[in-house]
Amino acid sequence: MSNAKLSRESLELHENLRGKMKLQPKIEVKSSKELSLVYSPGVAEPCLAIQQNPKKVYDYTMKGNLVGVVSDGTAVLGLGDIGPKAAMPVMEGKALLLQQLAGVDAMPICLDTKDVDEIVMIVKNIAPTFGAINLEDISAPRCFEIEDRLRKECDIPVFHDDQHGTAIVVSAGLRNALKVVGKQKENVKVVINGAGAAGVAVMKLLLTMGYQHVTACDSKGIIYKGRPYGMNTEKEYMANLSSAEHQEGTLADALVGADIFIGVSVANVLTEAMIQSMNQDPIVFALANPNPEITYEHAMEWGVCVIATGRSDYPNQVNNMLAFPGIFKGALAVQATDINDEMKMAAVKAISELVTAEQIERGIVIPNVFETDVTDDVAQAVMQAAIDSKVAQKIPSLI
Amino acid sequence: MSNAKLSRESLELHENLRGKMKLQPKIEVKSSKELSLVYSPGVAEPCLAIQQNPKKVYDYTMKGNLVGVVSDGTAVLGLGDIGPKAAMPVMEGKALLLQQLAGVDAMPICLDTKDVDEIVMIVKNIAPTFGAINLEDISAPRCFEIEDRLRKECDIPVFHDDQHGTAIVVSAGLRNALKVVGKQKENVKVVINGAGAAGVAVMKLLLTMGYQHVTACDSKGIIYKGRPYGMNTEKEYMANLSSAEHQEGTLADALVGADIFIGVSVANVLTEAMIQSMNQDPIVFALANPNPEITYEHAMEWGVCVIATGRSDYPNQVNNMLAFPGIFKGALAVQATDINDEMKMAAVKAISELVTAEQIERGIVIPNVFETDVTDDVAQAVMQAAIDSKVAQKIPSLI
Repeated sequence: MSNAKLSRESLELHENLRGKMKLQPKIEVKSSKELSLVYSPGVAEPCLAIQQNPKKVYDYTMKGNLVGVVSDGTAVLGLGDIGPKAAMPVMEGKALLLQQLAGVDAMPICLDTKDVDEIVMIVKNIAPTFGAINLEDISAPRCFEIEDRLRKECDIPVFHDDQHGTAIVVSAGLRNALKVVGKQKENVKVVINGAGAAGVAVMKLLLTMGYQHVTACDSKGIIYKGRPYGMNTEKEYMANLSSAEHQEGTLADALVGADIFIGVSVANVLTEAMIQSMNQDPIVFALANPNPEITYEHAMEWGVCVIATGRSDYPNQVNNMLAFPGIFKGALAVQATDINDEMKMAAVKAISELVTAEQIERGIVIPNVFETDVTDDVAQAVMQAAIDSKVAQKIPSLI
Repeated sequence: MSNAKLSRESLELHENLRGKMKLQPKIEVKSSKELSLVYSPGVAEPCLAIQQNPKKVYDYTMKGNLVGVVSDGTAVLGLGDIGPKAAMPVMEGKALLLQQLAGVDAMPICLDTKDVDEIVMIVKNIAPTFGAINLEDISAPRCFEIEDRLRKECDIPVFHDDQHGTAIVVSAGLRNALKVVGKQKENVKVVINGAGAAGVAVMKLLLTMGYQHVTACDSKGIIYKGRPYGMNTEKEYMANLSSAEHQEGTLADALVGADIFIGVSVANVLTEAMIQSMNQDPIVFALANPNPEITYEHAMEWGVCVIATGRSDYPNQVNNMLAFPGIFKGALAVQATDINDEMKMAAVKAISELVTAEQIERGIVIPNVFETDVTDDVAQAVMQAAIDSKVAQKIPSLI
């Protein structure tokens, strides 16, 4: 379908639907008797039970299966800061996917403020309503502080999907890609290009998982400690985690001898010379949207061994839908108070293990979201990890 | 059904449902093609259209049919300050009624703060998501300041149902009750007992509608200008509006020669002597819940001409369900920016006119919510009033 046709069809669909989600009663009230059960005076009973034991809110209300999809509209898709009203269609789309893939209720909440303190205060204070918060499309570096503070201050999980969803799927793909090329995570050299939400989160998660050599670049080249230009708190943080062997230099310098390139940056930054300077069997995750850092065709032509992109029209799509529905489903099922590293790593393993040995031989490293039970597998793994890492408030009798 | 049985059944129902509302997709996504229409990349198109013209948010998202049901849990039912989690079952019940009676989507938002400035800031900043805000079960006098400030600062209607829903249904009932007794609103003497959210709102609306003689009492007696005890900002306001003929004194003093008693206070404050001191054909709206200011049986026995209560087991139930679903439906249908006095008075008229002349002869002054098309009638009247009073952003082609 052409872009113009897709745009026209999408606009038409949105105008016909006037909202992709609706609030639907689970019970019909046809008489005074039913009314007195769901509303006054009978409703006083669950209210009082929750007042006496606040954890009962999970038994008697929507909270336990409800995610707030919160955005300030500052980094929506590739469109940038388009504001809270214009962000609504994306948040509704996210809510739709959570319900359809995971059976999780989700409600868009678009905020008319960009102030970090105000956003933290608002989310903290609406938290009693929700079982978890999905932060979405909030610009870096503000998103890091907002998530960090909310994770500390809320008694429900707060998960910034643009960071961790991407990091989890990338890590799952790399886990299989290393099998394709027969290398070990402890030995490979990884170069990440892009220091936004996804880049930082990928770096953190790879280091947590045991990768030893990770270098980060931005549009100005290698991010190194004490670089006198273009730094911010998160880039200082990335510089501190960066492998020692890389110091000053360009992306091209960083890629010499590298095993893995992960791009969360802009189209067409990779040249044939860069690919050829990499170690043998290069792995390239080129995730810039809609146009990747290297086209699939160039990657094939220039000798890339495993290529993944953000596109659905090529193999190995890095698609957050593989991760977030199962992560929220699993976290909610055990009333988790956090989505921690253990749960993220469990999701990585679950996603990667959906790819068969036969697929790996053909260079397929990431499962297709429509062809697998990825959401259930991820949910199961995340539940177990939440229990094992002691952030589960409820242990289901049968897992 | 006994209270104990009702409580047990309600608890059981709430435990089985685990939430009375769910978020339901209006479209199923089964393929990459559908995904690209409802989500990335096609969703960019409605996003950009809204960015260019923010009013398009009503065409492409849930906003136009979505009410936020906001509470801080400080004045829930008759239970008082039970907190935001314990308030959830009531807010879900309200959301259920809005969907079932008016086809309006509604989402509970329970807030973990009682600070007026914080509540105003939060509601103002989540407003881009919603077409209207229903404030619910927020204690007086905080509720007055919160509603006043939000009405000024938001570009969507903000309506505190505990105030105006009650005031509208009371006013509708009185409109018919005056027909029963053959009196005029300009001449009757009204005594309101109770200076909470409902009492203040009833007083304001009656005066707006042309009643001339209204006196307010609280547990300490008549609220008069300069009373040296038990005053607050709202009671000063009521004292300023109070009829001149009543000064110091008790509720019993206020009732001497009064035509109408409106109780939004506590059980059994009316005595036989008080009723007998009233003008001929007394009208009594005894709305304390669950036990009214006078029982139905005593009202009959002591010579009350028209009696209304908050109870569903007697005639003339003052039930907010007669008003709020139609008010929100009407306000949303024309994208109203406010719910103003004109719209409230239109609702009063629409509700009262559903009672037939034959019913009025039998002392029936308030329609039954399950036996009439009250929501549609109120919605039509409110739409027209919004258009006439110039707070409608959209004029439907056919009303």
